Parts: sequence; structure tokens; C-alpha cells
Amino acid sequence: MLEKNQWFTEVYAPDGSAFSLKIKRKLHEEQSPFQLLEIYETEHFGYLMVIDGYVMLTSRDNFFYHEMMSHTALFIHPDPKTVWIIGGGDCGTLKEVLKHPGVEKVLQIDIDELVTRLSEHYFPELCASNADPRAELKFIDGIQWVKDATADSVDIIIVDSTDPVGPAEGLFNEDFYRDCFTCLTDNGMIIQQSESSLFHLQLQSDMRNAMQNAGFPHLQTLFFPQCVYPSGWWSATIAGKQAVSSFRRNDAAKKPFETQYYNSDIHQASLAQPEFFNKAMQANG
Amino acid sequence: MLEKNQWFTEVYAPDGSAFSLKIKRKLHEEQSPFQLLEIYETEHFGYLMVIDGYVMLTSRDNFFYHEMMSHTALFIHPDPKTVWIIGGGDCGTLKEVLKHPGVEKVLQIDIDELVTRLSEHYFPELCASNADPRAELKFIDGIQWVKDATADSVDIIIVDSTDPVGPAEGLFNEDFYRDCFTCLTDNGMIIQQSESSLFHLQLQSDMRNAMQNAGFPHLQTLFFPQCVYPSGWWSATIAGKQAVSSFRRNDAAKKPFETQYYNSDIHQASLAQPEFFNKAMQANG
Repeated sequence: MLEKNQWFTEVYAPDGSAFSLKIKRKLHEEQSPFQLLEIYETEHFGYLMVIDGYVMLTSRDNFFYHEMMSHTALFIHPDPKTVWIIGGGDCGTLKEVLKHPGVEKVLQIDIDELVTRLSEHYFPELCASNADPRAELKFIDGIQWVKDATADSVDIIIVDSTDPVGPAEGLFNEDFYRDCFTCLTDNGMIIQQSESSLFHLQLQSDMRNAMQNAGFPHLQTLFFPQCVYPSGWWSATIAGKQAVSSFRRNDAAKKPFETQYYNSDIHQASLAQPEFFNKAMQANG
Repeated sequence: MLEKNQWFTEVYAPDGSAFSLKIKRKLHEEQSPFQLLEIYETEHFGYLMVIDGYVMLTSRDNFFYHEMMSHTALFIHPDPKTVWIIGGGDCGTLKEVLKHPGVEKVLQIDIDELVTRLSEHYFPELCASNADPRAELKFIDGIQWVKDATADSVDIIIVDSTDPVGPAEGLFNEDFYRDCFTCLTDNGMIIQQSESSLFHLQLQSDMRNAMQNAGFPHLQTLFFPQCVYPSGWWSATIAGKQAVSSFRRNDAAKKPFETQYYNSDIHQASLAQPEFFNKAMQANG
């Protein structure tokens, strides 16, 4: 039995599993207008941010997620200049996007400013590029932003959101994807975190169907490890106006910046679809 | 807090993390001459086998591990006919190896017969091929077996063992690898489970050094998800007398049997090495 004052535990009830991190202490707890945020200091994972009881990120292993949510899409697109990040208030995805010298403008749109304020304090390494003149942070409703935006105005939309419950629920449906399609330029694409293929196959299938119904002809799900999320195995799904299964491999191999997980081989590897995933997606159309 | 009678928890103390599965009840507990075995019925993962407090396998997700420990090596070797499995008493790896029609003889050598007896009872699907005339099960010391074996007598040695503590400790050192080298035929290779790159980089580096020092010129670490093992991300390391980074891709793509995770794309993908892994292995020689 894990002593409650020594461990933070996230139970994933639908699949009867739980993941725990040993903690030194709770550093912060605050209710924003949208959600309950907590910060812990862990024994071996650095700082831990929790939103509404769910693990969001740790200092130690957030690089898997942030690198795979950004560099994959940016090396698929032939020449991305404008990027919107919907969610992503911890600024880790923003930092990765800004590593690309060709990017001219990145807009981060998180509904909850408190996520960014706490990240600036506890995860300063993720916020190191927030003052980059190409970056702009807005704290407004991303769904409304996309609905109101000008057509053909953005190259890549990264949906770096919480799970599809609470404020993020409206980010996983056809209406939202249709608005994204309108905003995107001709080579444009959306990339969205899409949970675990071991636990959430139906959600992945529903997402892909909704993206297709919204007009995106090209889909690709990417797979990568993420220790602190349910099952330890995570995914992102890309929906593109053009093909998204190939990427600028030479550019990725010669990337002018450091990463911890991502490289051109890892990009190619993330495209490989397990047998059971292929069968499930075929069965569900 | 997780109620002890409702959850099985494995704490991974060196990295301050824990993984738990919700259980219906404990079905069996027995001390063999070598280790303590427990069987639980879980809520969502089928049956669970635990050895000395560590999760060994569940009905639901063992396919990742068993497929990646077998088909990778068998599709790298040009024509594998003889396979030894050291450990592997649950017979899941044996079942996968026997799916290859060209294999003529598989010897499974687990020191602890109780693992197999309990697997026959609780994981009959893994033992479905135990009566195959090509299969032979021995319950003896695998380290001694390899030491005493005839030179050039086996194509592939699969080391499907517990962690490098207790009875399996001697399976992670240079003397053992040297004996394996002697037993293996010209195209021969050993494949061994090699823990998590997030938690056990030093062990992986030590293993690779020991394999090289034992005479193997070609090494390849493979990466794959494994929800119930520490960090949810696991690996196997292959040491070969010949190159092990390419495989019979066309044969894998046309494999005459079903799998749940493995396919030719997944095989290729498992070869991709994360940036931090590359750096650590270079730094450690």
C-alpha cells in the first residue's frame, strides 16, 4: 500500500490501472476558473503538474510528448511559417516549435492563464523561449478563436490539450476540426494528442472519423512512449490537407537544434502501426 | 490511496514510481525452490503472474513482449532452425517461435518448473503449442546448459528472464555471453530483454559492453511499449555474429501467421534509437 502523503497516484479506472510517483511534498494548489491545479515536488521526476487529478507533466519526462507533438508536424510541412498551439499552457510545445528557424509566428492559445503562470515558476526551462519575438500568448477560448479566425491563415495547428473531458471536450469533435480545416493553408495540418492505443482505441477511431468527416483526406497516428500517462504509451494523430505520412527526412537528420527523444529515425518509427491498431481502424472504417 | 485488497502494486523504488492493477482476488501463492509465485485475477488485464513481488505478465498485454522477443530475431536470421529459450517458463515466447514453419527444434530451459505448471493452468493460450513435436521443455539451470553445450549448435538464443537479480543475475554478464557465443552457429545471435531506457540506461550500457567483450561484433537495442513493466517502455538487445540491424523485411511482411503487435513496419520502427540513448551509449563506449 502506498502512503498517501508520500505518493501521488492517478487511477485510470476504466482499465483498472494506476500510476504513482513518490513525492517529497505538495508545493501549490489553486483553483482557476476552469480547473484545479496542483504542483508537487517528486523524488525522481522533478516537479509534477496535476490538473483535476490527472498528471499533466513532470520535469523529467515531458520531452517525449513535447518533441513528438511539434517536430513531427513541422518536418512534415514543406515550409511552416505560422503555428497555433491550442492548449499547451505549460509552454513546452511552444519552446520546441520555436527551435525551427523558419517559423515566423507562433500563437499559443490556452484558456487558463494559471497553467502558464505556474509553469513559469516551476518549469522555467519550458518557458525559456516565451520572450521570443515570434511568440504570442493569448489566454482565451481556443475553440472560439478557431471559429472566428480568417480562412487560410495558419500552416499548423497543434492541439496540446487535456483529455476529452472538461474544458478540452470541444477539441475532439467534427465542428472543431471543420473550423481548423478552414483556417489552414493548402499544405496545412492539425496534430492532436490522441491518448493510448492500449486503452482508448475507440476514441482514436472516433477522432479519425471526425477528422475525415471534417474534410481532411490524410490521417496519420504517431506512437511514442510517455511514462506518466495511462499505459505508458501515447499517441498523436495528424490530419492533413496533403499527405502526412512522409516528411523532410534530410532536414530532420540535419536539424539545427538539440532534442532528447526526437530524431529522423524516431520520426519514421513513430509512423509504424501495430497489427491490432490496423485491424481496429479498418473495422471501424 | 489504493486499498491493498483491491490492487496489486509494484513499486519501482530506484525511480520513485509505482504501477498498480485492480484485482478481483488472489488465486494462487506458492514458494518454489527458487522464487515466490503469485497469480491474481485482475479487473481489466485478465490474469496476472507475479514473481518475488514483480509483475511478470498479464493475459491482456503480454503479446508486446513475447512477439518482440521472438519474431525480431527470427526475421533477422536468414534461416533459423534451432532456437533455445533461456527462461521463458510461461511459454509465451515458445508459442511465438513455433509459428515460424522453418524452425525445426525449440528448447525451452527454465530453472523453475512451477512457472510452467502455473502458466498451463492460468495462461493456457500461451501454452497452446507446448505439445508441438518441435518443442522440448527442460527444467534445469540455463547458465550451466549453455556452458556445457556443444559449439556451433544453435541459431538463436532468446534470454527471456526476470530482472538481473535473484536466479537471473548470471544471465547478464560476460561469461554467460561468451558461452552463448561459442554455442551459436555462424549467423547466430542472442536476444535478451534489457529493461527500460528511461530507468536503466546504465544496465543497458553495461550489457552491451559485456556482449561486445564476449566477442559479439554487432549489437542492436529494440524498443517497444510494455504497459505493466516499469516506465511502460521496454527493450530487448540483440548481439549477433553477423549484422543484426537489417531483417528479412519481405518475409516479415508476408508472415504466414497472426500477431497482435509485430509486423514488418513495427520491426523497422523498433530499431530507431532515441537521441538520449545514442548519446549515452556513445559516452559509455
